[in-house]
Amino acid sequence: MEKTLKSYRKIWSELVHYQDILSLLHWDSEVFMPEDARDNRSEQIAQLSSLCHKIFTGNELSDLSEKLFHELKTADIEPEKKLLLERELEVLKRDRNREAKIPVELVEEFSRTTNLAHGVWAGARKNSNFKEFQEILTKVVSLTKEMADAYGHDTERYDALLEGYEPGTNANTLNELFKSLKNSLIPIIHEGKAYPNPFKREVSEEYQNLFNQKLPGILGLSRSVSRLDVSLHPFSTSIGKKDKRITTRYQLDDPTSSIFGVLHETGHALYELGLSNSSEYPSPLTSAVSYGMHESQSRLWENQVGRGRAFWEYFHPMLLKDFQIYHYDLPFDDFFKFINSVNKTKIRVEADQVTYNLHIIMRFEIERDLISGTLQVADLPEVWNSKMKEYFELQIENDGEGVLQDVHWSGGAFGYFPTYTLGNIYSAQIFHSFLSTHQSFWEDVRTRGDFSSLLKWLGKNIHKKGKFYEPNQLIKEATGEYPDSSYLVRYLKSITQGLE
Amino acid sequence: MEKTLKSYRKIWSELVHYQDILSLLHWDSEVFMPEDARDNRSEQIAQLSSLCHKIFTGNELSDLSEKLFHELKTADIEPEKKLLLERELEVLKRDRNREAKIPVELVEEFSRTTNLAHGVWAGARKNSNFKEFQEILTKVVSLTKEMADAYGHDTERYDALLEGYEPGTNANTLNELFKSLKNSLIPIIHEGKAYPNPFKREVSEEYQNLFNQKLPGILGLSRSVSRLDVSLHPFSTSIGKKDKRITTRYQLDDPTSSIFGVLHETGHALYELGLSNSSEYPSPLTSAVSYGMHESQSRLWENQVGRGRAFWEYFHPMLLKDFQIYHYDLPFDDFFKFINSVNKTKIRVEADQVTYNLHIIMRFEIERDLISGTLQVADLPEVWNSKMKEYFELQIENDGEGVLQDVHWSGGAFGYFPTYTLGNIYSAQIFHSFLSTHQSFWEDVRTRGDFSSLLKWLGKNIHKKGKFYEPNQLIKEATGEYPDSSYLVRYLKSITQGLE
Repeated sequence: MEKTLKSYRKIWSELVHYQDILSLLHWDSEVFMPEDARDNRSEQIAQLSSLCHKIFTGNELSDLSEKLFHELKTADIEPEKKLLLERELEVLKRDRNREAKIPVELVEEFSRTTNLAHGVWAGARKNSNFKEFQEILTKVVSLTKEMADAYGHDTERYDALLEGYEPGTNANTLNELFKSLKNSLIPIIHEGKAYPNPFKREVSEEYQNLFNQKLPGILGLSRSVSRLDVSLHPFSTSIGKKDKRITTRYQLDDPTSSIFGVLHETGHALYELGLSNSSEYPSPLTSAVSYGMHESQSRLWENQVGRGRAFWEYFHPMLLKDFQIYHYDLPFDDFFKFINSVNKTKIRVEADQVTYNLHIIMRFEIERDLISGTLQVADLPEVWNSKMKEYFELQIENDGEGVLQDVHWSGGAFGYFPTYTLGNIYSAQIFHSFLSTHQSFWEDVRTRGDFSSLLKWLGKNIHKKGKFYEPNQLIKEATGEYPDSSYLVRYLKSITQGLE
Repeated sequence: MEKTLKSYRKIWSELVHYQDILSLLHWDSEVFMPEDARDNRSEQIAQLSSLCHKIFTGNELSDLSEKLFHELKTADIEPEKKLLLERELEVLKRDRNREAKIPVELVEEFSRTTNLAHGVWAGARKNSNFKEFQEILTKVVSLTKEMADAYGHDTERYDALLEGYEPGTNANTLNELFKSLKNSLIPIIHEGKAYPNPFKREVSEEYQNLFNQKLPGILGLSRSVSRLDVSLHPFSTSIGKKDKRITTRYQLDDPTSSIFGVLHETGHALYELGLSNSSEYPSPLTSAVSYGMHESQSRLWENQVGRGRAFWEYFHPMLLKDFQIYHYDLPFDDFFKFINSVNKTKIRVEADQVTYNLHIIMRFEIERDLISGTLQVADLPEVWNSKMKEYFELQIENDGEGVLQDVHWSGGAFGYFPTYTLGNIYSAQIFHSFLSTHQSFWEDVRTRGDFSSLLKWLGKNIHKKGKFYEPNQLIKEATGEYPDSSYLVRYLKSITQGLE
């Protein structure tokens, strides 16, 4: 068995190297690549993606993993190690089967169409005109349905898509979770207040960067294994075991935008770092268990930790110094209230942590109907605008600030949105569980900027588990309960009530 | 034939994509990669290099090119196109055969040993102790001899190595060329003068960068297809058709160091850009014909152009402005004399454009004897120091400032050094030929910073020719004569004499 295991691990490690190189190609294209190189870079990415797909779904890996599966049955190894290997082979088979189900022609047509749709969407958004986008979006939806049918589903079609983002969940479960959350959010939104921007003047990118470059290291993401750069849309990526990169973007009149971008992406990167730190790395188990879990790690550092009073009691003086602002020009309370404002906006990416979830729930409801076929693409603007009216009491004036605001649907990423709110739900539950056994955490933060107990706990209870459990079960193992939105509700209530 | 040609072009284009990705992995590791990622990056690079080697020497490419070769004989196509394709297949065969001659085990042992030797060399240089390096260098030399014998040679062993850097040349030819150059250089060095550093105070990296970022674009390397960054050792690399990247390094007390670094690397990048602009790109003919020719392009912009009076008559005011220096603090003449100083140094990379070639000639003489076997590794320091005494009248005090100063031999790069001086010889001859038909060039530069006639001429006469001719023949086609060191001598004389 040792020989088979070694050959199998070798292919897997080669695949991971190629995937990491692919991440570098993406990172570079968003951060440093000269503009005219875009077409050529797309070809490089397509070629390497295709190589990864071939290795992942190819016979060599398949044969070796099958062989290993059989040899494992009679192998004389520790039960714990055996269990781990069995689960690893099971997850590999599940993921391979899913990827292999889509015919190459469909993959290519989907890729071509969504590439095209992205450009059309950008133009339509600029002109605030959904009509321009309608035809190609109809094609994207139709291809997405075809993909979902190829994946297969016993229940509704949308579930086949969800499985790719959040294995083990389904639309009905999400609906229950989100319905109770929606009902609880409405009164909190009514209680919440919008506080004014406390910055009296612009803060240069240089000053913001000075502060931001320190943040990841203090939270536990060292400079020797990471870097922070600037890009149009903030993101996080892993380019290797000890190479996690994040980006942010700068808004001169509101530096909290770049800061919370850094905190969010640092959370993602710390999860990736934790996954790489597993002793089995790299294996089919040492990657993110789901999009929702990934988002929970970013939201935890961004919101649960990064909007806490103790967090800013530690960082506020450092921020004043780096920004060269006198204390009386940026009083702690004004700053703290501002970062915990509740402020209904039409645009999701500008939303606060309370209303954000309503944006998601509404998108979930819409895309579920779109994929099941009960809602037609042509009717999207009307449904969108009426939901904005119902949930937010906001009047959408044009498609640009409405149904055209997000990039996701142009890329056929139906089933992605719900993972944002799942991430929020998980993060509140996880952080609540951590705090219950680590009462001194906030004091460690306030006095010394010491986050190590949290990172250690997350490493042990979430990161190092990789894909061993399904997301729901992982939450249960880590917190004692299955996912429950009441922790998020309790947290959001305490924030808004704690400000007055 | 069209079908074969298409399949053949497809593989070639895939290979070039992988090579470009490999360049990105190298570039990133020198410029932005977090420190701890080094080991993992080496694995990524090794894996992708091995993939490139497999494609290049593999049966698929070989069979297709053979098939194409036969189909071409009877194909009904334009004679010019036929000639181009024939030459392309010939060059491909030559390069493939060379790479295929080395057994995989030897490649791996060479790679392992030189990796190791690099670390040992760095330590020995730090301690200025050649003895520490002697054993591993002996192994590197022995493996290099083995490689040379595997390549094969009718004349002397060193020629087999030269062929990899400068196809078509050999040690005897170089010896003749260099001997006459050496004799001419000695009196020029005696006449030459060292002028003092005219900068009265340090210039910040920010100010230097402000100036440097403008340079490539003005010479013809647009920002939309290139970028300039910082690295420990300046270099230039191509990451795709429209993606050429260069680096420089900053010395605060002498900003001319970074500026001439930028000019040098811009020259390399313009060559790569010109090669990519060929209508056949990418093909086995659209890459650099030799190391010497590549160096000629960098030296041409760095020295022939970048140390010219008209060049600085245009740029000096811009430099003063970007550096925030008053004119009377950096008079034109002081600056101009300084950048054309002749100043004997012990260290090659600090040498001026005149003495530089003596450093190279001496290395050529030494490594030729080392590879032929008439000189032993143990005797290197003694030979080195005595040549420094003879050619430079300089006394070497320790191995660090002597035989250990260069990285090349630790990597087994014997045969590389001569291409530096070949580059200088080519560049002077090429520039002389260009000027003879473009009398208004310096006036265009002085008055408008207009370099376009030069770039156009180089594009047509050097860059777009790719590997169609051997280096010697390419020089003949472009200038009317085979390589001749007298143009370099004439240029160096005129510079040193023109300063008083």
